[in-house]
Amino acid sequence: MLKNVKAIDPQVLSDMKYRVWEANLALEKAKLVVLTWGNASEVNRELGAIVIKPSGVPYATMTADQMVVTDLEGNLLEENSMKPSSDLPTHVHLYKHFADVCAVVHTHSKYAVMWAQSGRDIPPYGTTHADTFYGPIPCTRQLTQSEVETAYERDTGKVIVERFEKGQIDPLAVPGVLTIGHGPFTWGATVGKAVENAIVLDEVAHMAMFTEMLNFQHDVLPSYMLDKHYFRKHGANAYYGQG
Amino acid sequence: MLKNVKAIDPQVLSDMKYRVWEANLALEKAKLVVLTWGNASEVNRELGAIVIKPSGVPYATMTADQMVVTDLEGNLLEENSMKPSSDLPTHVHLYKHFADVCAVVHTHSKYAVMWAQSGRDIPPYGTTHADTFYGPIPCTRQLTQSEVETAYERDTGKVIVERFEKGQIDPLAVPGVLTIGHGPFTWGATVGKAVENAIVLDEVAHMAMFTEMLNFQHDVLPSYMLDKHYFRKHGANAYYGQG
Amino acid sequence: MLKNVKAIDPQVLSDMKYRVWEANLALEKAKLVVLTWGNASEVNRELGAIVIKPSGVPYATMTADQMVVTDLEGNLLEENSMKPSSDLPTHVHLYKHFADVCAVVHTHSKYAVMWAQSGRDIPPYGTTHADTFYGPIPCTRQLTQSEVETAYERDTGKVIVERFEKGQIDPLAVPGVLTIGHGPFTWGATVGKAVENAIVLDEVAHMAMFTEMLNFQHDVLPSYMLDKHYFRKHGANAYYGQG
Amino acid sequence: MLKNVKAIDPQVLSDMKYRVWEANLALEKAKLVVLTWGNASEVNRELGAIVIKPSGVPYATMTADQMVVTDLEGNLLEENSMKPSSDLPTHVHLYKHFADVCAVVHTHSKYAVMWAQSGRDIPPYGTTHADTFYGPIPCTRQLTQSEVETAYERDTGKVIVERFEKGQIDPLAVPGVLTIGHGPFTWGATVGKAVENAIVLDEVAHMAMFTEMLNFQHDVLPSYMLDKHYFRKHGANAYYGQG
Repeated sequence: MLKNVKAIDPQVLSDMKYRVWEANLALEKAKLVVLTWGNASEVNRELGAIVIKPSGVPYATMTADQMVVTDLEGNLLEENSMKPSSDLPTHVHLYKHFADVCAVVHTHSKYAVMWAQSGRDIPPYGTTHADTFYGPIPCTRQLTQSEVETAYERDTGKVIVERFEKGQIDPLAVPGVLTIGHGPFTWGATVGKAVENAIVLDEVAHMAMFTEMLNFQHDVLPSYMLDKHYFRKHGANAYYGQG
Repeated sequence: MLKNVKAIDPQVLSDMKYRVWEANLALEKAKLVVLTWGNASEVNRELGAIVIKPSGVPYATMTADQMVVTDLEGNLLEENSMKPSSDLPTHVHLYKHFADVCAVVHTHSKYAVMWAQSGRDIPPYGTTHADTFYGPIPCTRQLTQSEVETAYERDTGKVIVERFEKGQIDPLAVPGVLTIGHGPFTWGATVGKAVENAIVLDEVAHMAMFTEMLNFQHDVLPSYMLDKHYFRKHGANAYYGQG
Repeated sequence: MLKNVKAIDPQVLSDMKYRVWEANLALEKAKLVVLTWGNASEVNRELGAIVIKPSGVPYATMTADQMVVTDLEGNLLEENSMKPSSDLPTHVHLYKHFADVCAVVHTHSKYAVMWAQSGRDIPPYGTTHADTFYGPIPCTRQLTQSEVETAYERDTGKVIVERFEKGQIDPLAVPGVLTIGHGPFTWGATVGKAVENAIVLDEVAHMAMFTEMLNFQHDVLPSYMLDKHYFRKHGANAYYGQG
Repeated sequence: MLKNVKAIDPQVLSDMKYRVWEANLALEKAKLVVLTWGNASEVNRELGAIVIKPSGVPYATMTADQMVVTDLEGNLLEENSMKPSSDLPTHVHLYKHFADVCAVVHTHSKYAVMWAQSGRDIPPYGTTHADTFYGPIPCTRQLTQSEVETAYERDTGKVIVERFEKGQIDPLAVPGVLTIGHGPFTWGATVGKAVENAIVLDEVAHMAMFTEMLNFQHDVLPSYMLDKHYFRKHGANAYYGQG
């Protein structure tokens, strides 16, 4: 039973829950998630609702019905709700500042974490990168002790937004980030796309790491190749796929 | 219904589509393909037809019937055809210049991409390499901005052919290449063989990378060992297999 | 038929055996175990019983009933018992000295072994580490020749306890160790938790190794981040999960 | 129908074929074999028969019945036999010189090949190594051009035997070798044991490689630890397992 959003069409909410549940399972199936280390959410700004994975629930027994519904500030909207993922405040902050982002995914996928732990941006070494990320995948600055102790999860969102704003990076053109010492967040216009971007980020992270081992010069892709591959798949002149 | 090739025996065309579809699935099964990043094609020069994977279609739902038929210039031959893989012009160019090649495969397989992104040829460090590739697996030069902006996919084919012609490399003796910053193309007399060569290339790429980590001297196989292993499996005096 | 512990409720013992059997299978399913290289045990101090995997038995045919029951000194308690894991004396020693530990797991999981063979502690490079291990994962000193020849397995336990006591490390806050040249032991309040910690240790070992390859500075997580992540999941103020 | 060995009990031969077939499949299941790159054989010196995998046959369709039977010199013993693995002369040579070896396995397993291609012995860095290999896993010398051109496969056996004899290495105490630029051979008293040793060799090769990355000092296991672990599992005083 809904507390504050009785007005939401139950079918719309149930569909959101189903998609978010499915996205969380897809993360595990793609081997991006070990134990319960990952979460996916979706926002519907018009309805004022976010749906997110519950905290610490094993994927094997998790049901669509257990997905947690909150308002746009992260307040629970259903009675008898489970506790939401502890990373919810990060998701909330991203939804507030990235207007075109409708879904967020967080994992501890191996290769992305290795880069996050090294504190480095992932350079665009190839077209696999450029097909999805239009430039380096940025790594956030370290949070201060005060940020960590006061509102850690929200400020994780804050340093992400800060990095994109200061660097004038379009979050849809670079749909992912590394939070230093922690791991990747990705996003997209749909939760399926956010999951796909999480898969790509980890693959690209793996490739980039050993590209550096093979060639100490670390030449990145020429900018005209970056342009070509990104715009082959995105924007008005895209010609990849059936769309 | 065929536009220009009504003369093609429907069974022959249907068999080609089935083999190409099967080859694309085999790439995914061998874990060479993530998401939709790969494509296989087959040519029948006598009939004037190429069959290739459609662009951006998920492997899980792809059917043999959806394979795209074109003429030898890459023009669609069927009404209501799906869009072909965006890499079709590369395949077309290879078929034009490599007379004995009847099938082409492209993937973003991890280890081959790492070498492609490093811009280096893969040296023949061992017999696993020599059994399939009679010499280094070459990496193409970077395309110029003008090549990328004018006819990127065709010119990807052009730099491959250029590398083989300048280096006087026989494309059947070295049935694969790395396109710099991008990834591997392999080929063969049959689409099954082209898939097999894609599997071997990635395996050999993986082995070569860590061979270098273990031994900084990077000694390649003596040429008489390269000869022995290559000709054990290929040519008139081959004695491997049941053939 | 029990020799000395006829007093143990058969259902309690049977439940212990089932859990220990299940834990051993979980190790294999998580790919931490090759062939028969792993063992899990559980202690019930009140009943004076330890249940552990039999030595060298293939996982595929192993049954819950074959789990071996010993007293707190490692003496067999059942007639017709199989031989216990040869590492039993290590488990016994840990149970004697780590009062809150109720289950122990040993594996030769790849990445943890690589660190153990290098003789190095695993530094806390990220939050994936900090979520489970509150500080570096220590590596024991080399056993002396006399220790190895006299009571090798018991003294493997001895050098573990020595490292924790000298370093004033709380075994529940750092629920795992590397034994030099050998491999990891993990533990927990339940055998499920000990298995989970073995999974985390190997994952963290993998991530740490390549973090070092990507960044030669090897900066560890700031201590306030270590605190934040560890206490987000553990202790009175934990707020992760549904508990 | 047997040509020269009609005297062999058909059930004994059929059992040998079944075990060899099963061993070959086990290699693939353990992911040691890509495509058809592997072979296992068994010898019965009393009966004068070797059973080995046929050359270049896909594992998916291979049947026990297709296993090839030869005499102790490698001559075919059955009419309508398939062609034996091209590595048969290596197996034959090992059986002639290693009197206690009753089964041989050859693969191109990744990590073992990386070491073979680097031309280095695998140092005994840990107990996982010592549990099976009592000392370094040796790498053979390069074959001369004349050896390669005259009797390549036999002389591959010759350089293996040469390395063990010159180094006074007991082939049962070190049940495997790396042939330079090529890959591993392992053996054992049974074909099951030879397969197991192939699994261990690749695992140990993987661990050793990254042990070196983590610690540039490359300290090997103290000899008393090597003794302890090897003799815990082998010889009169072994106490591992149920035996």
